[in-house]
Amino acid sequence: MRPSPTELITKKRDGQEHGPGEIAALVTGFMNGALTDYQMSAWLMAALLRGLSERETLALTEAMLGSGKQLELRRTLSPCVDKHSTGGVGDKLSIPLAPLVAACGVRVPMVAGRSLGHTGGTLDKLESIPGYDVRLDVQSFRKVLRSAGASIIGATDALAPADRRIYALRDVSGTVESQSLIVASILSKKLAVGLNGLVLDVKCGRGAFMQTPKRARELAQNLVRVATALGTPTVALITNMDEPLGTSIGNALEIRESIAILRGDGPPDSTELILRLGEEMLLLGEAEAKPARGRARADAGRKGKRQRARARLEEALASGRALEVFARMVALHGGNAGVIEKPELLPQARHRLAVLAQQAGVISSVDARALAEVAIRLGAGRLRTQDSIDPAVGVELLKKRGDKVARGDVLCLLHTQSKTGSPLALAQQAFEIGAHPPGALRLVRERITG
Amino acid sequence: MRPSPTELITKKRDGQEHGPGEIAALVTGFMNGALTDYQMSAWLMAALLRGLSERETLALTEAMLGSGKQLELRRTLSPCVDKHSTGGVGDKLSIPLAPLVAACGVRVPMVAGRSLGHTGGTLDKLESIPGYDVRLDVQSFRKVLRSAGASIIGATDALAPADRRIYALRDVSGTVESQSLIVASILSKKLAVGLNGLVLDVKCGRGAFMQTPKRARELAQNLVRVATALGTPTVALITNMDEPLGTSIGNALEIRESIAILRGDGPPDSTELILRLGEEMLLLGEAEAKPARGRARADAGRKGKRQRARARLEEALASGRALEVFARMVALHGGNAGVIEKPELLPQARHRLAVLAQQAGVISSVDARALAEVAIRLGAGRLRTQDSIDPAVGVELLKKRGDKVARGDVLCLLHTQSKTGSPLALAQQAFEIGAHPPGALRLVRERITG
Repeated sequence: MRPSPTELITKKRDGQEHGPGEIAALVTGFMNGALTDYQMSAWLMAALLRGLSERETLALTEAMLGSGKQLELRRTLSPCVDKHSTGGVGDKLSIPLAPLVAACGVRVPMVAGRSLGHTGGTLDKLESIPGYDVRLDVQSFRKVLRSAGASIIGATDALAPADRRIYALRDVSGTVESQSLIVASILSKKLAVGLNGLVLDVKCGRGAFMQTPKRARELAQNLVRVATALGTPTVALITNMDEPLGTSIGNALEIRESIAILRGDGPPDSTELILRLGEEMLLLGEAEAKPARGRARADAGRKGKRQRARARLEEALASGRALEVFARMVALHGGNAGVIEKPELLPQARHRLAVLAQQAGVISSVDARALAEVAIRLGAGRLRTQDSIDPAVGVELLKKRGDKVARGDVLCLLHTQSKTGSPLALAQQAFEIGAHPPGALRLVRERITG
Repeated sequence: MRPSPTELITKKRDGQEHGPGEIAALVTGFMNGALTDYQMSAWLMAALLRGLSERETLALTEAMLGSGKQLELRRTLSPCVDKHSTGGVGDKLSIPLAPLVAACGVRVPMVAGRSLGHTGGTLDKLESIPGYDVRLDVQSFRKVLRSAGASIIGATDALAPADRRIYALRDVSGTVESQSLIVASILSKKLAVGLNGLVLDVKCGRGAFMQTPKRARELAQNLVRVATALGTPTVALITNMDEPLGTSIGNALEIRESIAILRGDGPPDSTELILRLGEEMLLLGEAEAKPARGRARADAGRKGKRQRARARLEEALASGRALEVFARMVALHGGNAGVIEKPELLPQARHRLAVLAQQAGVISSVDARALAEVAIRLGAGRLRTQDSIDPAVGVELLKKRGDKVARGDVLCLLHTQSKTGSPLALAQQAFEIGAHPPGALRLVRERITG
């Protein structure tokens, strides 16, 4: 291996920039054993503390992408567009969004992740549907996409295997929190599919990994630039994550809410954000669609296009077509689509404990982070990757920011397996009750394009 | 393991200071497998880039020390004092110094190292004596010390095994160059023996690891403070390493010079430095000696003591007693002491190539680093720990700084196995010849005490 592993490590340790060939040698060496785990973890720590330039991040993403199969779905299943969220509290958006966008003619080949820390995981939520299998092989993935238009699977060893190995190492070596490593990890998995476009939901606020607008913007710009440079048109929305999204936190509870959204019956905030993300996905898909389908409208302004995209999404919800696509997707993954009509088929917790308002007023804020902590204590999340989760438990919000409450009103229900030891007080403290209505919440803070 | 490995790593990554219990947990966890190689290398990189405080360095040294046997030789073989050099070019001083000091009544239980990079290794030099075994077990080490008063051995797994494992990891993970890690590594091995005192020869200059006085002083102070805090009185001399020490670079060649020094026939610079280091060792040994032997002189000033120590050392050289101790030590290590009378029993290179002065003048400097590079190219040193060395080859200096030369004079001889491909030009360029004599060289720049 030229340069040697130690030369690569000391170069980054001393704050120098790697050439693209060096980054490729690093990843290739790691995959073929010429560079060991303990050398990679030392390099990762040096990269975290010294930082990686955008060129280095791009080279790393490309090398990780190149470590496995590249499906190039855009060649045969165009238009196909994926969405990625950096993780929030109550963020079940992927689940209704994928079938909704597919119902509008843009395929959604989604490679999703699991819950970790205070954020939920799309795969864990889907697995609360009896029978749903997230571990499809590449061939079955293509088949579901062709038939339903949307498929949500977990990362497989076929796609960007270097990311799996590097992530496992980062997880146990204190090197998760590097923006460049996060960018390479997200994009190598997503771009391995071969998309016409990618929409990023970069969460910002106390319930997100990025707590300040500055850090969220940096990450969004970094992601958009690297993905675009690698040939995938990408748009990022920076969205608010101070408040939990929708009215449920917890796996089966979030499937219920997803079904409600697809019925046109969901909470206003999660529904609105799905429509905003869906617009972006349709616009990216349309830009890539064949002339006969989309180029005729090329003279129309962007605003006109966006309005038409929104109208198509709303129609897909209202007509029930989005829900139909969801049912097909669930069935093709081996899941029981009967849960759509009978939500009681989903796992249910033994008890519902009511958390009451201690005073009258208007709810001025609901702390997403605190409720995530409540959900973890109930068993809905993981602190470590090897922890198991309980799909039935979680928090059901009956009141949200801006709602009026009387003393003794139910603020939320804790779905729990045990009557004792539930974090009632913590849940209560998550709700701040004031005298006056709070200002309007900006759901989307910013839109970042390449 | 509480705190968890990842918690320890992220704490150092974020620039926080560890408590002593955390450092102990780190080392214990590493030794018992609760903390893996890839976690340790990530921590080492974080420690290198974030730095360790003096308290942390002390705790690390103590934990590494505690990972193995602690011999406490000072209980049974008092007074015993060791010397450590941070490594220079032509630095064979340990070899004549140990028997010389032992001949004056202070035992020298020396755990030495091997050549790496541009610096030589005491063990490699000793092994050029046919039969000399550096791998004595603890029992034999004590026996040689009791009988000869001095023994030079390699690190064993019994003493500070954590240092061996951590050093092996540092060597391949780009984490050698951390001052705190260097301090802990040096002292854990040295103090495991249980000394009455320790003398440090911290080299400074172009032929040393520490190239600036500032960095050398920092390292010396750090070493002295940590060793003293751990209960071993310690003195450091910061000595010049711009010029090679003595007249030989190369393993068997340096044994020849060592014998010459012990005969009172050595080069002025290496002999003088041995006397300076010997003084410090005798003073530390005397301070610890029993009242009957040393305390009666407690009223005498330090200068008087130093003069008396010097006189004893000079007498041990002149009387031949130091050489006798050396012969006994070599024999007890299984080595052929006949090399003292017949140096031709040492390995000899096939050829001697003369490097000539291109002009007349006075030698204004000899570049230690350049000659170290020449010696490595001849095969006398190692670039990597697994490289093998040739004991016979090296550089023999016929001229040193300050010497007058005529055009065509022999500056040095390359002892080499091959007539072709020897680095003659590089050797020639190491000698700078000027019109005027250079200023006096300060052999000892500074003395640092606790």
